[in-house]
Amino acid sequence: MEEKKLEEKIGKIPVIFKELKETDPDLYGKVMGLDQVIWADGALSRQTKKVIAIAIAAALRDGHAVRAQMAGAANLGVSKEEIEEGLRVAFLLAGMPAYVHGKTALEEYLGNRPKK
Amino acid sequence: MEEKKLEEKIGKIPVIFKELKETDPDLYGKVMGLDQVIWADGALSRQTKKVIAIAIAAALRDGHAVRAQMAGAANLGVSKEEIEEGLRVAFLLAGMPAYVHGKTALEEYLGNRPKK
Amino acid sequence: MEEKKLEEKIGKIPVIFKELKETDPDLYGKVMGLDQVIWADGALSRQTKKVIAIAIAAALRDGHAVRAQMAGAANLGVSKEEIEEGLRVAFLLAGMPAYVHGKTALEEYLGNRPKK
Amino acid sequence: MEEKKLEEKIGKIPVIFKELKETDPDLYGKVMGLDQVIWADGALSRQTKKVIAIAIAAALRDGHAVRAQMAGAANLGVSKEEIEEGLRVAFLLAGMPAYVHGKTALEEYLGNRPKK
Amino acid sequence: MEEKKLEEKIGKIPVIFKELKETDPDLYGKVMGLDQVIWADGALSRQTKKVIAIAIAAALRDGHAVRAQMAGAANLGVSKEEIEEGLRVAFLLAGMPAYVHGKTALEEYLGNRPKK
Amino acid sequence: MEEKKLEEKIGKIPVIFKELKETDPDLYGKVMGLDQVIWADGALSRQTKKVIAIAIAAALRDGHAVRAQMAGAANLGVSKEEIEEGLRVAFLLAGMPAYVHGKTALEEYLGNRPKK
Repeated sequence: MEEKKLEEKIGKIPVIFKELKETDPDLYGKVMGLDQVIWADGALSRQTKKVIAIAIAAALRDGHAVRAQMAGAANLGVSKEEIEEGLRVAFLLAGMPAYVHGKTALEEYLGNRPKK
Repeated sequence: MEEKKLEEKIGKIPVIFKELKETDPDLYGKVMGLDQVIWADGALSRQTKKVIAIAIAAALRDGHAVRAQMAGAANLGVSKEEIEEGLRVAFLLAGMPAYVHGKTALEEYLGNRPKK
Repeated sequence: MEEKKLEEKIGKIPVIFKELKETDPDLYGKVMGLDQVIWADGALSRQTKKVIAIAIAAALRDGHAVRAQMAGAANLGVSKEEIEEGLRVAFLLAGMPAYVHGKTALEEYLGNRPKK
Repeated sequence: MEEKKLEEKIGKIPVIFKELKETDPDLYGKVMGLDQVIWADGALSRQTKKVIAIAIAAALRDGHAVRAQMAGAANLGVSKEEIEEGLRVAFLLAGMPAYVHGKTALEEYLGNRPKK
Repeated sequence: MEEKKLEEKIGKIPVIFKELKETDPDLYGKVMGLDQVIWADGALSRQTKKVIAIAIAAALRDGHAVRAQMAGAANLGVSKEEIEEGLRVAFLLAGMPAYVHGKTALEEYLGNRPKK
Repeated sequence: MEEKKLEEKIGKIPVIFKELKETDPDLYGKVMGLDQVIWADGALSRQTKKVIAIAIAAALRDGHAVRAQMAGAANLGVSKEEIEEGLRVAFLLAGMPAYVHGKTALEEYLGNRPKK
């Protein structure tokens, strides 16, 4: 039931986090508790938090994290334009390659490019 | 007039950007043009873009950038709670020290700590 | 009591974390739970985990995080030589400036330099 | 003979470093000299230094470096649990994606996942 | 015509930037204007700027950016030795894995390795 | 004598490196050997290598490294305009805050601002 609640907040739970439930239930429980608090609707909506997460992952040039975050975006109802604008902030703060990391994943998950 | 328009979008223009107007007006003009497009209200509001910028700067552990961004937050009407929630996303994506960088500046600019 | 247990694991609890107890007890409780699990003696000793933390903070060139971690090192019984060797690994993985960030703090907290 | 000595310290020498011996023997010699000093048993064992290296590479989200370091871990007798604990420190210092970078490689090299 | 001018400065325009011309001509125009100023011959030649870009991308461990920059290097007449020396500066400033990121791409684009 | 040779290549030797000569002559000797090779005139001049180092340090937002590198620039005869152009490449590759880190130090060391 906890997984369903988290999925409503972030759109999609990464496989490696689900595996942690089997291998280390204590750590899993604690990280899950933290996630439930941080991703929930608050002063910022879940959707805004998703855009922030994608922008940070792009700024850190973390291709895996960008894709892991992007994978849940559509389920949450985040629009392609919202993510595009967040990535442009990442361009100013972290450079053109940061924008490119995010843009490439954006086109794969919410656009027309084939998934890599 | 352009400076006033940008100030409405980001809250406060850093000194070093203003100096660029004197030393290199061509570069200044081009960066200003880019800023005007990226920071304007769009699918995301200016306020949301400000929170994203603060969260990215914290994730990059860039104390100067965090403060430069935080300095304009109150003028834009961004609340302390919105920034706090953005910083918690930075914690999950970039670690506790990233959260601390942002939190420290948040308390200085929108809280109770004396400015460093 | 929980604070005392954590202090035995990391040597010194940063001020900003203690403040979180007042401002957000729910988040504080969850982060505290995670910290208690991760910093405890295990396959790696608390002391080894401290060296890893210092080396990572140096590799990320995070001066504040390096100092926050270094502040607890002596209390844990970590030696200057152990930290020095961890910083040399950081040099190979992240460059000379990473080593310098750590070395500067090492001399301030476990050596002869005056604290900045 | 020098390569054998280094291999005993780090478990496995990356191909690109071996190639450097042909293309630039002077630089190779100097880097080799540095490596021999830094990776040797000292106040920290070779095994602890390996865990630090993996944790740093994960914190820097450097997938290639994580794998290059992980490749030598089994040869050195580093256990899966020791690396897991080091990666949890990386999670606290550098965020969940840093942990994931390391965990993914850990499962490929010392676990059950197929190598990518 | 503008694309041809930029290509003379950087050697090769990335596909994703060309796509931006269709999807967002206003942003494209502004970024293009900035690029034309920054990459042109000045106190530093275009070739030196290319070496700097490759070295920065390697220091940031950004494999995609390294390749995007490397792809234009030969067209600009930058030599393999110049890039090699820039990458060694990246090694000192950002660690051995940074050097490896750059070296791998260097061998693919200006050397003997098959392209990945 | 070796210190004088290195000073001719980089302009100014950081204090902490000189201290290493007393505390760890073996490591010092090996790092010195590496430095002598990497910073010397080659396919790239010492001056170009200095600009690359400054640009990388700015891209990594490492204020201490930027200043350590900038301190030797004037001695080497690197011009303010050359560094400015290198920093603009850093802006495109790593974002506006990276440019600001470098620009601030540039004005302190080769310009008009008081040193911090």
